[in-house]
Amino acid sequence: MYKATIAITLRPSILDPEGETVHHALTNLGHDAIEQVRMGKQAELWIEADDEAEARRIATDACEHLLANPVTENFDIHLERASASAK
Amino acid sequence: MYKATIAITLRPSILDPEGETVHHALTNLGHDAIEQVRMGKQAELWIEADDEAEARRIATDACEHLLANPVTENFDIHLERASASAK
Repeated sequence: MYKATIAITLRPSILDPEGETVHHALTNLGHDAIEQVRMGKQAELWIEADDEAEARRIATDACEHLLANPVTENFDIHLERASASAK
Repeated sequence: MYKATIAITLRPSILDPEGETVHHALTNLGHDAIEQVRMGKQAELWIEADDEAEARRIATDACEHLLANPVTENFDIHLERASASAK
């Protein structure tokens, strides 16, 4: 069993109104030191696979076909062995 | 300048209907090897701070007061030096 932690982020060229709203709110809370905010998604997948290469292939396929928008988003997959799902 | 990459996840005891929906969709796409999905958020903050301890304090404060729900969510902060914000 592998756990894939996937960060899905907007490409740098894509505007991020959610991030700008959060940045504005943090500035209003007094956080002048925060210069920029970008918001994204995280997906955690528990995958039954024989090896890390197969787990990565499954996670990549899930990103390309469902989780990420190939036009506007990038994704980054981090894999680790897991004893069981979080259920 | 530091970049804080913050993973905001639902606590394990909290139901995740978005994750269950994604899991269902992935199963329909043929991904039987994926046993569970949990969805979360990611925030990237560019912070002007003198040292890593100050950047961590600012990022933690932002999580506790705005980004994360202390009842339902956990957060995990990863810090790295950054040359400039992504602007």
